Amino acid sequence: MESTKQMAVIVQKFGGTSVGNPDKIKAVAQRVMNVAKEGNSMVVVLSAMSGETNKFVELAHAMQEQPDPREFDMLLSTGEQVTIALFAMAVKAAGMDVISLLGDQVKIITDASHTKARIKSIDTELIEKYHKEGKIVVVAGFQGVTPDQHITTLGRGGSDTTAVALAAALKADVCEIFTDVDGVYTTDPNMCKSARKIDKISYDEMLELASLGAKVLDIRSVSFAKRYKVPIHVRSTFTDTEGTRVVEEDELMESLPVSGVTYNKNEARITISKVPDTPGIAAKIFTPISAADIVVDVIIQNTREGGWTDMTFTVPLTDYDQAMGIVEKVCADIGAESFVGDPDIAKISIVGVGMRNHSAIASTMFQVLAKEGINISLISTSEIKVSCVIAEKYTELAVRALHDAFELDKATPTEEH
Amino acid sequence: MESTKQMAVIVQKFGGTSVGNPDKIKAVAQRVMNVAKEGNSMVVVLSAMSGETNKFVELAHAMQEQPDPREFDMLLSTGEQVTIALFAMAVKAAGMDVISLLGDQVKIITDASHTKARIKSIDTELIEKYHKEGKIVVVAGFQGVTPDQHITTLGRGGSDTTAVALAAALKADVCEIFTDVDGVYTTDPNMCKSARKIDKISYDEMLELASLGAKVLDIRSVSFAKRYKVPIHVRSTFTDTEGTRVVEEDELMESLPVSGVTYNKNEARITISKVPDTPGIAAKIFTPISAADIVVDVIIQNTREGGWTDMTFTVPLTDYDQAMGIVEKVCADIGAESFVGDPDIAKISIVGVGMRNHSAIASTMFQVLAKEGINISLISTSEIKVSCVIAEKYTELAVRALHDAFELDKATPTEEH
Repeated sequence: MESTKQMAVIVQKFGGTSVGNPDKIKAVAQRVMNVAKEGNSMVVVLSAMSGETNKFVELAHAMQEQPDPREFDMLLSTGEQVTIALFAMAVKAAGMDVISLLGDQVKIITDASHTKARIKSIDTELIEKYHKEGKIVVVAGFQGVTPDQHITTLGRGGSDTTAVALAAALKADVCEIFTDVDGVYTTDPNMCKSARKIDKISYDEMLELASLGAKVLDIRSVSFAKRYKVPIHVRSTFTDTEGTRVVEEDELMESLPVSGVTYNKNEARITISKVPDTPGIAAKIFTPISAADIVVDVIIQNTREGGWTDMTFTVPLTDYDQAMGIVEKVCADIGAESFVGDPDIAKISIVGVGMRNHSAIASTMFQVLAKEGINISLISTSEIKVSCVIAEKYTELAVRALHDAFELDKATPTEEH
Repeated sequence: MESTKQMAVIVQKFGGTSVGNPDKIKAVAQRVMNVAKEGNSMVVVLSAMSGETNKFVELAHAMQEQPDPREFDMLLSTGEQVTIALFAMAVKAAGMDVISLLGDQVKIITDASHTKARIKSIDTELIEKYHKEGKIVVVAGFQGVTPDQHITTLGRGGSDTTAVALAAALKADVCEIFTDVDGVYTTDPNMCKSARKIDKISYDEMLELASLGAKVLDIRSVSFAKRYKVPIHVRSTFTDTEGTRVVEEDELMESLPVSGVTYNKNEARITISKVPDTPGIAAKIFTPISAADIVVDVIIQNTREGGWTDMTFTVPLTDYDQAMGIVEKVCADIGAESFVGDPDIAKISIVGVGMRNHSAIASTMFQVLAKEGINISLISTSEIKVSCVIAEKYTELAVRALHDAFELDKATPTEEH
């Protein structure tokens, strides 16, 4: 009957602050209905109301020091269930048809890694059936179910992953991620007044920015989107302006070599000096650290003359004290001369797919920092990223200087139309 | 391996006040574990933490004046999900094995009457599997699932029904209903000091007591228990003393003719006077009332000379104003002379299977009330019950006089050992 009309399938995801109380849920429902009324098939993915998850975490820890992961998921997954039910009521109250679905009802099948499960498959049959009936479908984010019916959750940023995975399975025209900012910026606007919203960015750049601390989009959902070529649109819950579109690299025309400058103040540096340079020494140092579930980021090894080496690496600031304790023991075991830690560091990074075709981007970065009198204590690079560890107090200065030097305040040719 | 040991299957149900906070949940978990350690296979049915359901009702009404029933169930069912997860954590923390299950995981299949669904079947396979693995099984009360996977709730007192239905399906040795009182009393102890806890009561008596206002056990669960001969034990969450056992009638030996005196102040009386006594007149009066979802309790019709009749009936106090409005219209339609209502009434009832073998129980009741100068305005009787409607102010007096007259403060022969 409606085959003459080309309807789009649109997935929209709203986070916890966007659905934090009944009025906000009503506003989100109105926004979704406006798009539905244009003839689009809507899938809405919601997080728990802000504050709810923390409440559950507190309750769980009141019961058990280390809450049982399966039961933790049973508890946490109720947060999204509440939101989707309330959202559906708001839509019904406004006279449109809607149905709410849980992860197990959709059949979002995951592995059994409770609290950090990975999606294995999604059944689109039920959603497509409800779309044919003209219903808005609202799905609980963050949750799935194992093949034998245990409820799982997807871990941090899980609702983003739910949205992208649904968009991939449904071959949706777009997956819109609504947040409290209006897109991805060239750097932190609070730190640099000339920061500019990026109109289009590649999956790879977004991955680097996400992993480096840009909090608008969860890293797992970006890699999922990249794999299945899901067009993502990161935009504001509170305005109708275009946000940032995350797209395939070949959709980006000519672009500046650097897309963004990012920083991370939540790491600490540890240096072990004068380690006997024997085979397996790195394993001896890092095995006990990873056994303590501490994620080491940058690692640099400098070999000295005379069979000695220095080892420097960064760890999350929250794990710094524990890591220093482990290092103390390790130093005694391996016969290192000394070790020193510094929690007051920042990692400054420049990211851009354009680096692949531009040499000397890294050296430009070093020159810019040198000109400002900022000492670099660690360097690490990837194909589309250069990171430097510096003293934390220079963070703002470094970000602004790099933003200016790479002319990020100027729109690229692609973005002008 | 364990076939030499005769293990009992025990279903225990705890209500919202028994699991109202983390400490109470821990106490309930400890109580369950003590029974499990004796070698019994445990099924625990929990309600939502007290206060949670009200919170959800408020949220729902903030979204939609008349919340969509399917979405209301989606919302409400999260309350029990939270409790069973926390309970399971408490058991795990104490080192015993446990698993929480939702209605749809157990496969508690219901019809599709959202917010007041009826159980059609229960699958015991999963629970029995976990029992074989030595796990305590904790099940979310109040909820089920339709054959096509929509979540339903069972209405008021639904967790009692869940417990009894599970006990029936599992052929459990006993279904223990834990409440904040220590059993069923011969009358309200707050009203009559000599009220006595009943040790054993028949299903039929319990049904009459439940429907007449004794709040310890939901009426639907009692009729379910009667049909499937589930032995129920109503007892206190806070003590280890025996409560009241609800059993088949033939398990009760000789007993007093009256088991209990109960009252209900939450009704109102309406009388329509001088109605033309024509066929179908009752239908004309009660059809619009039931169409407004008002449950009429006692109905009395008195025929006068000359082709006129008077019609008196009771309605819930909360529906009184609405019912009076309907009656006003109906009176005009049917040409009744007048109507009058009285919200200040009480219904006093005596209940007992022994009435079947004792004549004159009803007349004794009338004499006792007359001796106290209490006027009776309506009488209704069943095989094991006599109810009188009196002025509300005489409630306490009537309850005490009847309790004394039928010697309910004395233990029956059955109950002495």
